[in-house]
Amino acid sequence: MRIALDAMGSDQAPACEVQGALEALAELEDDVEIVLVGDRSLIEAELERHQPVPERIRVVHAPERVTADDPPASVIRRKPSSSIVVGLRLQQEGEADAFVSAGSTGAVMATSLFTLRPMPGVDRPPVATVLPTAAEPCLLLDAGANVDCKPHHLVQFAHLGSAYVRDMMGKERPRVGLLNIGEEPTKGDELTQETYRLLAREPGIHFVGNVEGRDIIRSAADVVVCDGFVGNVLLKFYESVAGFIVGLLRKELEGREASLDLDRVFRVLDYAETGGAPLLGVCGVAIICHGESPPKAIRNALKAAARAVRSDMVKHSARELAATIKEGS
Amino acid sequence: MRIALDAMGSDQAPACEVQGALEALAELEDDVEIVLVGDRSLIEAELERHQPVPERIRVVHAPERVTADDPPASVIRRKPSSSIVVGLRLQQEGEADAFVSAGSTGAVMATSLFTLRPMPGVDRPPVATVLPTAAEPCLLLDAGANVDCKPHHLVQFAHLGSAYVRDMMGKERPRVGLLNIGEEPTKGDELTQETYRLLAREPGIHFVGNVEGRDIIRSAADVVVCDGFVGNVLLKFYESVAGFIVGLLRKELEGREASLDLDRVFRVLDYAETGGAPLLGVCGVAIICHGESPPKAIRNALKAAARAVRSDMVKHSARELAATIKEGS
Repeated sequence: MRIALDAMGSDQAPACEVQGALEALAELEDDVEIVLVGDRSLIEAELERHQPVPERIRVVHAPERVTADDPPASVIRRKPSSSIVVGLRLQQEGEADAFVSAGSTGAVMATSLFTLRPMPGVDRPPVATVLPTAAEPCLLLDAGANVDCKPHHLVQFAHLGSAYVRDMMGKERPRVGLLNIGEEPTKGDELTQETYRLLAREPGIHFVGNVEGRDIIRSAADVVVCDGFVGNVLLKFYESVAGFIVGLLRKELEGREASLDLDRVFRVLDYAETGGAPLLGVCGVAIICHGESPPKAIRNALKAAARAVRSDMVKHSARELAATIKEGS
Repeated sequence: MRIALDAMGSDQAPACEVQGALEALAELEDDVEIVLVGDRSLIEAELERHQPVPERIRVVHAPERVTADDPPASVIRRKPSSSIVVGLRLQQEGEADAFVSAGSTGAVMATSLFTLRPMPGVDRPPVATVLPTAAEPCLLLDAGANVDCKPHHLVQFAHLGSAYVRDMMGKERPRVGLLNIGEEPTKGDELTQETYRLLAREPGIHFVGNVEGRDIIRSAADVVVCDGFVGNVLLKFYESVAGFIVGLLRKELEGREASLDLDRVFRVLDYAETGGAPLLGVCGVAIICHGESPPKAIRNALKAAARAVRSDMVKHSARELAATIKEGS
């Protein structure tokens, strides 16, 4: 198995990516290779600092770098030698099985759509994110790839999320909830009211009804579907609240931190533990990390990518969607 | 000044309301009276436990009680002797200046619309909620009264929020942000893209642009406007995350809590501190509290109601909206 890693994506690239890749290799099976994609001289200079470098690391040169100013949809045309385009092309051409990047989310999404292509039955591939909760983690999707969704998009998200949780978290029958502002079927806006009706009769989905903002953290569902607007607002809010509260506490505990291991207490809230946000519904594995990712987040995203490849997540998702199309026809 | 308090609203009614009313009176100016509205025998039994009862407490009998099963819009017709309808009628008839309730949010909203009536220029009165942040609190609206909003509704929310923050928090020129999923003007869904264009040229609004989920806690704006769907999801999520984290910590600190005053650290996160959610854009003062409100929340909501009456918040809001209508015509 070969995973292509965008070595130029994070704010601390390529040091952070190189470190994360080495940490991942130490934990992953022997058949996993990591291809660092980016500026060869920068990457090799960084690798120099980690001698001896394992043989399972390779470098593929990609001299261009995507910035926040590049319009995402034009990256594939305007920066064909960027680490994002080169990395995804490797997968498109069968030279890699997965792609991980902490670069521009928009550029990774847009380029994935052009190279990996959406699965049949998927109109708008969603980005999923794993939210820490009081019990099992919850997969929230869409976390920001698609706004102004229609009800049938959310039904597709439900299938993709179920297939992902089944393969990646080992749950046979993931509970699917619809993010809403009340429990009753008639609650919500036009989108959620109609989506509720569709999900309630959708074969292959274990629909547990509406979940409210407060239910996510109580682990009321394994998969929560929503429009990408609300999903993205929620995700960014969660990260900031967790950081804010940890900050409040650190200040309070100043000078006596030894008595309380905050890092351990809050590991449950740490997005870096969850291994990035997968783009689902495309014919391949693409995982997007924060620009601020530490090496640990890169390591966990690489491990998630390996798990997705190993479990045949993409094939299972495609099969689930194909069944939907057949039923619908 | 006279504030009508629904004594039958909270989960621990009327004990919680009576306690909150007494605490509020101890802190409010001498000209404030509180009218407890609800089942007279239950309220008087509760007052018995707090002898001597101040003269500034009165009881108005309202034998019916609104439950979660009552369709909100029909409460005014079907339960005219309920504490919600009687309490709001007192204000409609000039017998009270404000109404506070921890009862059914939907019923308080619907009955307020029928009795207090929307202001000219307000199509859909929003519920506002004060979110604790790292610095000054942030007023988020709409927090759940209206879904499927149109851009001009959000512009009305911006005016109502500005007027409220000006009078209630003493900020001359409140910064108004639009909740969105990116900073740039072109980001977002159809609603936010068009709302951005309107807010950017709206007279009387100090528009600071888009704010993301993560910006709220950083206190990037004094007023944040959004559709009631996303506002409600966010609000409920916030409350649950704060509770979840405090729970994690309490567990960790078991046995040695003396060393860390969690209540003090987290007072900033405590919604009970913020005094309930005002329904804005109606010709009167109506403040809605959580069903789970402790007496402290009732006390703070009563104090907020008194401040709203004292500052002539309703008149100022109406004037701001009237100016908008004039400009628009």
